[in-house]
Amino acid sequence: MAAAAEGPPPPSPAAIPETTVPEITPPRHPLFARIRLATIFDVPHLHKLIHQMATFERLTHLFTATEVSLAATLFPNPPPRPFTSFTVFILEVSPSPFPPTPQTDPNFSPILKTFHLDLPIEDTEKEVFRSGIGGDVVVAGFVLFFPNYPSFLAKPGFYIEDLFVREPYRKKGFGRMLFTAVGAQAAKMGYGRVEWVVLDWNVNAIQFYEQMGAEILPDWRVCRLTGEALESFAHLNI
Amino acid sequence: MAAAAEGPPPPSPAAIPETTVPEITPPRHPLFARIRLATIFDVPHLHKLIHQMATFERLTHLFTATEVSLAATLFPNPPPRPFTSFTVFILEVSPSPFPPTPQTDPNFSPILKTFHLDLPIEDTEKEVFRSGIGGDVVVAGFVLFFPNYPSFLAKPGFYIEDLFVREPYRKKGFGRMLFTAVGAQAAKMGYGRVEWVVLDWNVNAIQFYEQMGAEILPDWRVCRLTGEALESFAHLNI
Repeated sequence: MAAAAEGPPPPSPAAIPETTVPEITPPRHPLFARIRLATIFDVPHLHKLIHQMATFERLTHLFTATEVSLAATLFPNPPPRPFTSFTVFILEVSPSPFPPTPQTDPNFSPILKTFHLDLPIEDTEKEVFRSGIGGDVVVAGFVLFFPNYPSFLAKPGFYIEDLFVREPYRKKGFGRMLFTAVGAQAAKMGYGRVEWVVLDWNVNAIQFYEQMGAEILPDWRVCRLTGEALESFAHLNI
Repeated sequence: MAAAAEGPPPPSPAAIPETTVPEITPPRHPLFARIRLATIFDVPHLHKLIHQMATFERLTHLFTATEVSLAATLFPNPPPRPFTSFTVFILEVSPSPFPPTPQTDPNFSPILKTFHLDLPIEDTEKEVFRSGIGGDVVVAGFVLFFPNYPSFLAKPGFYIEDLFVREPYRKKGFGRMLFTAVGAQAAKMGYGRVEWVVLDWNVNAIQFYEQMGAEILPDWRVCRLTGEALESFAHLNI
């Protein structure tokens, strides 16, 4: 997807006939991106991002998260070691390079990447998603994942619950950057598998995942027990 | 499913004409069942059970687990608190009542249930699955699950990776007992959701889950990144 924003390479000078007006490379707009581990201070942004994702998936009727409940469940005290429980990577972007980012966990270094865009991004929600670290840094997306256990492999893996990029930042390679960060973390830790689910009508997402090397398994169905049906189990006579 | 083994109730005495020979209730065969948290000593049985499950699911080509890798990943040292990471319930059966079972975790008491079967169970693998606790106790199944995180609810849930009952013990209510144990644990802990996946051709399992109050979600597809495709992420330039 990053390639889509780059355009074709300019023709080599030898290929340009002398009578042709030399093509002027349009100015590029650099945008600096960083992925870091989320902290409890990201909860207000995360809450808005998860709500936007529910809207995109047409599932707002299932959305009951609050900032308080997110903080309590994603950032308990004492915090578990990163990657052993629910883990969130935050994607931030900035028109200026990021200052050196401290490595808060021995298993993970923040990931930096510079994007060169044909056009600057018009972000009407810039103020809402302005990062608490100051400057012109804006939160553009996130990925939430946690360990799973493919027993046939007898190795842990990761399950990606959510991967979301805000609308103005889509189709520019940011989703790929977030997804790659999780895949790279799994590979580095010697994990056996990364799994997630996708809505069958989300053909853009399916195409993206296939490009990333994923298989889409056609014959498994997701089953869910929730709400009153689940609550009734508390009093069930086993 | 337990009901299927019970048969219809006997007719009330008033309904029996005097000329009818009184119906003799066939003798029932009690079988005592217990669900407890697995320990590292269950690994040899677990390894065989997971392999039997791979055979049932026609997926033995994906099976690479060994006793050593299962022990290292399911029972690390120090052990995490039960239910905060990969968790296994073991189902044992015995023709005699179980002795009082010590409660090893404050959040979970072993679950006991007595089944009354029309016929005794012929278990040709009884010796292979004889429980280490001695007596005539045999391991009949297991369920492996771990926390997941439905972010719309901002509450943890459980994901059931495996639920398996050995062949001679099927269709008698043991699968229901294992499933109910996980649902009850989730409900008691105030969790928001239990999820798992099922093969779309496994109509018996789908029917069973629907009876248990589950929804089968038709429009989600499972995506998987594994093997060399995943390993390549370790060296990928993000």
